Amino acid sequence: MRICVVGCGAVGSLFAANLAQLDDVDVWAYDVSQAHVAAINASGLRLVGADDVVGRPTATSDASELPPCDFGIVSTKSMHTDEAVAATAHAFTHGAVASVQNGVGNEEVVARHVARVVRGTTFPAGKILEPGVVQWDVKGDTTLGPFEPQPATAEEIVRLADACTRAGMPTHAVSDARPAQWHKVIFNAATNPVGALTCLTHGRVCERPDLRALVSALVDEGKAVAAAQAIALDADPEELIDHAARPDVAYDHKASMLQDVEARRPTEIDFLNGGIGRFGHELGVSTPLNDAVTALVKGLEESWELH
Amino acid sequence: MRICVVGCGAVGSLFAANLAQLDDVDVWAYDVSQAHVAAINASGLRLVGADDVVGRPTATSDASELPPCDFGIVSTKSMHTDEAVAATAHAFTHGAVASVQNGVGNEEVVARHVARVVRGTTFPAGKILEPGVVQWDVKGDTTLGPFEPQPATAEEIVRLADACTRAGMPTHAVSDARPAQWHKVIFNAATNPVGALTCLTHGRVCERPDLRALVSALVDEGKAVAAAQAIALDADPEELIDHAARPDVAYDHKASMLQDVEARRPTEIDFLNGGIGRFGHELGVSTPLNDAVTALVKGLEESWELH
Repeated sequence: MRICVVGCGAVGSLFAANLAQLDDVDVWAYDVSQAHVAAINASGLRLVGADDVVGRPTATSDASELPPCDFGIVSTKSMHTDEAVAATAHAFTHGAVASVQNGVGNEEVVARHVARVVRGTTFPAGKILEPGVVQWDVKGDTTLGPFEPQPATAEEIVRLADACTRAGMPTHAVSDARPAQWHKVIFNAATNPVGALTCLTHGRVCERPDLRALVSALVDEGKAVAAAQAIALDADPEELIDHAARPDVAYDHKASMLQDVEARRPTEIDFLNGGIGRFGHELGVSTPLNDAVTALVKGLEESWELH
Repeated sequence: MRICVVGCGAVGSLFAANLAQLDDVDVWAYDVSQAHVAAINASGLRLVGADDVVGRPTATSDASELPPCDFGIVSTKSMHTDEAVAATAHAFTHGAVASVQNGVGNEEVVARHVARVVRGTTFPAGKILEPGVVQWDVKGDTTLGPFEPQPATAEEIVRLADACTRAGMPTHAVSDARPAQWHKVIFNAATNPVGALTCLTHGRVCERPDLRALVSALVDEGKAVAAAQAIALDADPEELIDHAARPDVAYDHKASMLQDVEARRPTEIDFLNGGIGRFGHELGVSTPLNDAVTALVKGLEESWELH
């Protein structure tokens, strides 16, 4: 089978390099970074850290070079989904496309361009060290299920999950991926903007009763929006928040949104708190605190354009 | 009569320099900045900008030098009230002390140390340019009334207001200063933290519908806390917010809290949104958005201690 990773940043690279280990999978990597593409094609895609892997996907920044694929795995930042999937959709005319991105609302964007979509959530994380080399920080599971309005077939989802698992990325094919997805988005939306707006690590945020209360209030709004969709979360985001605050887990971790703020990069707020707010609005569930932090982070992003 | 200005920063200097113009008032200025005190005693206290004034109050950083005074005008930053009034209280054994500080909750702190307290709100603003020299940015009115649990007499309030007015600082003696004070604190609490957390000027904040909605939501919580105290605001803070956003008024103004954040100085959040939250808590009025921005600004302040 042929799989194209669309957006070969840190997470996309974990999928591309690992999947390229499989003899029965032809892996393509589409990315707008020509330096990353050139390095991958010259020397392979190398993962270091949690595991050492070198994969040899075929990389390109020219979407017209992509052959027909059985699967896409979209792993761009959320705000680049529309552009990236529009450019590559021709390769998925007969295939199914999964999003493994952060937040909620990505599948809806993918579905504008391709017929069959997979709802996905993934926990592995890393960062690009240099073109062609990615630090694999954290291993973790991936969950794949149908995107309800335009679902991939159950057989497709099982086949993609099996390939990922065999490649070293444990992946569960499920009939409803929303509980896992909303568990993760509620966690991310409750912790990321608080870190980003205060410049505090996850552990410091959780040590302050006033900020920890704000985190819980954001969680509660997210839970209400999930409940309005009859989604039974697969675990309580509060447990993940407390677990991550432990000194031996992620006390000193700067939320990815704080890393974006420090680098003055656009954040994924529109698909985290902004996504919860949009779903809430459609469902008649008010989300004033998620709306507030969305507005604050977007205002902060605007300020960078002015200096 | 003798008046001591306690905390001779920008606003305190406006009172001290103007009051020192009056032949019938002996003005003292207490401030912890020895450079500011030395400059005032050497060359007088000079105001430039909205008006040019040179006054010659007697300045000191040594509270034990203060003679008995008829009036105190407390104009420290809110978080320094307790220390400054504790140090100077002996001068007000037979006098009345007014707060003209930002926020709510200052009079309660003053009243721990002196018997008769004046609730005050002032709009003039400026900044210290160098020791002994203050830029007078904005003229405006001051309102003085009794602090209800430990009030100054009506005669005292009229006498102090009359002196300020004659000195060029128009001041109204009223029987209830809470409507003016809550009007101002609601305005400040709705605009200051939004500017501080986004790094946007007042005009930019008001141009973004999402941030302008957050400002209004903060206003609404403040109005609810005022209403629970049966305070009828003397004007709608929304009008002041829209007025200030005009290009010819304060479009490019950075909220004082944003200036504090940029300079990494402690903010007055505890007496703005934090004050609204405390009053709301006592009154059974929930203030989740004021609580949220209070926590975020205090978290941001904590982050400065770590770098």
